[in-house]
Amino acid sequence: MQFNHKDLLDLDVLNAGEITQILDTADSFKEVSERKIKKVPALRGTTVANMFFEPSTRTRISFELAEKRLSADSVNFSKMTSSVVKGESLRDTAENIQAMKVDIVVMRHSSSGAHQFLSEFLDASIINAGDGQHAHPTQALLDMMTLKQRWGTFEGKRVTIIGDIMHSRVARSNIWGLTTMGVAVTVCGPPTMMPVDVEKLGTGSVTDEYDLHKAVEGADAVNILRIQLERQKAVLFPSTREYFDVFGVTPAVLDEAPKHCIVMHPGPMNRGVEISQDIADGDRAVILEQVTNGVAVRMAVLFLLAGGKIEESDIR
Amino acid sequence: MQFNHKDLLDLDVLNAGEITQILDTADSFKEVSERKIKKVPALRGTTVANMFFEPSTRTRISFELAEKRLSADSVNFSKMTSSVVKGESLRDTAENIQAMKVDIVVMRHSSSGAHQFLSEFLDASIINAGDGQHAHPTQALLDMMTLKQRWGTFEGKRVTIIGDIMHSRVARSNIWGLTTMGVAVTVCGPPTMMPVDVEKLGTGSVTDEYDLHKAVEGADAVNILRIQLERQKAVLFPSTREYFDVFGVTPAVLDEAPKHCIVMHPGPMNRGVEISQDIADGDRAVILEQVTNGVAVRMAVLFLLAGGKIEESDIR
Amino acid sequence: MQFNHKDLLDLDVLNAGEITQILDTADSFKEVSERKIKKVPALRGTTVANMFFEPSTRTRISFELAEKRLSADSVNFSKMTSSVVKGESLRDTAENIQAMKVDIVVMRHSSSGAHQFLSEFLDASIINAGDGQHAHPTQALLDMMTLKQRWGTFEGKRVTIIGDIMHSRVARSNIWGLTTMGVAVTVCGPPTMMPVDVEKLGTGSVTDEYDLHKAVEGADAVNILRIQLERQKAVLFPSTREYFDVFGVTPAVLDEAPKHCIVMHPGPMNRGVEISQDIADGDRAVILEQVTNGVAVRMAVLFLLAGGKIEESDIR
Repeated sequence: MQFNHKDLLDLDVLNAGEITQILDTADSFKEVSERKIKKVPALRGTTVANMFFEPSTRTRISFELAEKRLSADSVNFSKMTSSVVKGESLRDTAENIQAMKVDIVVMRHSSSGAHQFLSEFLDASIINAGDGQHAHPTQALLDMMTLKQRWGTFEGKRVTIIGDIMHSRVARSNIWGLTTMGVAVTVCGPPTMMPVDVEKLGTGSVTDEYDLHKAVEGADAVNILRIQLERQKAVLFPSTREYFDVFGVTPAVLDEAPKHCIVMHPGPMNRGVEISQDIADGDRAVILEQVTNGVAVRMAVLFLLAGGKIEESDIR
Repeated sequence: MQFNHKDLLDLDVLNAGEITQILDTADSFKEVSERKIKKVPALRGTTVANMFFEPSTRTRISFELAEKRLSADSVNFSKMTSSVVKGESLRDTAENIQAMKVDIVVMRHSSSGAHQFLSEFLDASIINAGDGQHAHPTQALLDMMTLKQRWGTFEGKRVTIIGDIMHSRVARSNIWGLTTMGVAVTVCGPPTMMPVDVEKLGTGSVTDEYDLHKAVEGADAVNILRIQLERQKAVLFPSTREYFDVFGVTPAVLDEAPKHCIVMHPGPMNRGVEISQDIADGDRAVILEQVTNGVAVRMAVLFLLAGGKIEESDIR
Repeated sequence: MQFNHKDLLDLDVLNAGEITQILDTADSFKEVSERKIKKVPALRGTTVANMFFEPSTRTRISFELAEKRLSADSVNFSKMTSSVVKGESLRDTAENIQAMKVDIVVMRHSSSGAHQFLSEFLDASIINAGDGQHAHPTQALLDMMTLKQRWGTFEGKRVTIIGDIMHSRVARSNIWGLTTMGVAVTVCGPPTMMPVDVEKLGTGSVTDEYDLHKAVEGADAVNILRIQLERQKAVLFPSTREYFDVFGVTPAVLDEAPKHCIVMHPGPMNRGVEISQDIADGDRAVILEQVTNGVAVRMAVLFLLAGGKIEESDIR
């Protein structure tokens, strides 16, 4: 089955079948990273431009590894070394990238409008690697891949997302993806960090709950968001401890959840702020599985957008 | 025919046959970037060091793509991360590069002396990727490739170069290359930005003209230089509008040129300063063709300096 | 013979047979960099992460070239672009790297504890590419490879190391390696830069000598350390000339050494501070051979840690 999208800007345009196709393709690619020779020829001669206009370690490295393991050719550029210092506009940059016959652009940019603009403008496929507070679709997909592996099915499941829901691209993309797959979502955080009309987010059941202990009741997984200390230090620092007291996920909190409830975090973690040390390193955490799945999901997205239809020879 | 130069520092040392050889080789490579698998094995196992001591997006990316599409191995270093911070001299850096058995050095450096020095000193081939105000040979070659594709021939043609001629490496290298191929050149710009004795530049017909409307009369192409706002803002900013009024290329200006006259710009453009928005995006502009040809020209230069003689198997 | 270590943190854990195995493997790989096609498939599909948290040109480029010439896939990250700016700890970074199935981590870090910590924590092999003032094993190995090529044997030889012995990771690793191979070492420098109990360093004969002229008597090689001007300028700058007068290696100093005595320096050199211009560029200097051998030694270390046992097909 051909994948029927040019770009991956967010999960709101994907139906359940398409999400399943990505996750199944990722399953096939995951095994490549377990081999001694972690490389398949699937995207040989395909050109990928990695444009990270905001700092990132794990997402950038994860994409780069995905590209190399698919044998694609990548070029990187970041704000600091690009002609942005000469005042070149995003549009001119994009036109140039296209004129150089780039096949796929992976972009992190503080403005979500940037991705939309490029997607309309370029023949190249655009992958949103995170944009301001709007969307981070490959993060949501790797979260869902992790859930699927642990759960076996999405049917009848519930995820509780905890933290700064309002400003979180991870929360938004997860809500779209999870509700599309029929998973019920509860969001929980301080009232100042909660969007209005949460029930209108996504395509299914989304509820809000301000009491963390109640929010985790019946949850099959909790997804704990990172508190952006570097943005809010001036305001929140006096209350970091207070945040932990009320919204930090600890063993006492998880006692309210079912025994099989797993713990996710997109990283990097603030231990002792949104998550306690013992939960972060505990048995329920699947945080490193998320990282491993990240490479596989990105291989799948790159491969499908490049027009791929997985065949035996692509993973040999 | 073997290409008979170790380095490409500028076009002043190339004769018409050698320029033709580069452009013909670039034509052969251009098609590689149009394929699904944009990669040929021509320079497999060849080591290229990209040394960009000044910021650049398009030139650096263009070289990197050229290298990858030829299957070369590249290492990059820039001012910020290099041992220049420890006070290592260019000579010591170069000796080290050579001792590591690098085959080709692509260098952008503010001083043109740097390239000359390395070319005498190193066995590796040096490609000048832009130096201060002196030379930018691969830019001139990609401009000429674009002209050749549009014109079919250089014979009897005229190019008008507009802007800060005195400080422009693009202008200087274009003048050398174009006059060698028998193209007549007119240069036009404010008197303060015009070199003395323009007729002594290049090897053929070069004339100056201070009236933009007259300068484009009879031109088969205009090449509009970038005004370096970042260097001259303090002095020029009050007169950016004035510059546009007198030397900005607009539809009214182009009305004085033949209907077939095409518009080139090395980028990045300052729309509304040296070029009007509608010209930049108009039918006569071949600016993105220049970018596309840039990758092909750089593939050709890398290939020829590496001792290549193009054969069927190099582009398979 | 399988190489029996997961990591290369320093030379203190290697016996003479293991050091010989690395140097012999490096000999086999050295020839690869002399070919037109400088590439072998030995590490195809192996993932290497280069983590340089301190600036470096030659060591980083040397490792990158070694990786590319072995056909490994590399990802780079440096302090400036990594999530360290978000407060991510080294441990979390490392766990992530591992979860992405990296095989080998090459790390330069100001703290030697960092390497030890990662080596215990990760399944990936750790290569110490320089750490504060403690160890720089691949530098010592490339120094020893150079000595072996020049001398033919280590038996009965003497090396004099000159400079800031106390703060030098190059000196420390050289002392470990040389004494393990039975080479006698003399260290020489200002009393303020000399460690106490030098005879306890390494596993064999190490003596100190404060008079440079006496220190080079009977030396088969001198290894001149770099004075870290950038660290000590405030204190040492008034006496740079004085340092040169007393500890700078000049022709007059080398007149006291045997005629066959060779001169090494790890680079980058401060000409006129620790070494005179004419010695730096003179016949006795093997400084660029060291650089060439650096790529070969790093290829050998990467290959052996990846579980390699060199066979004919690895260098074809």
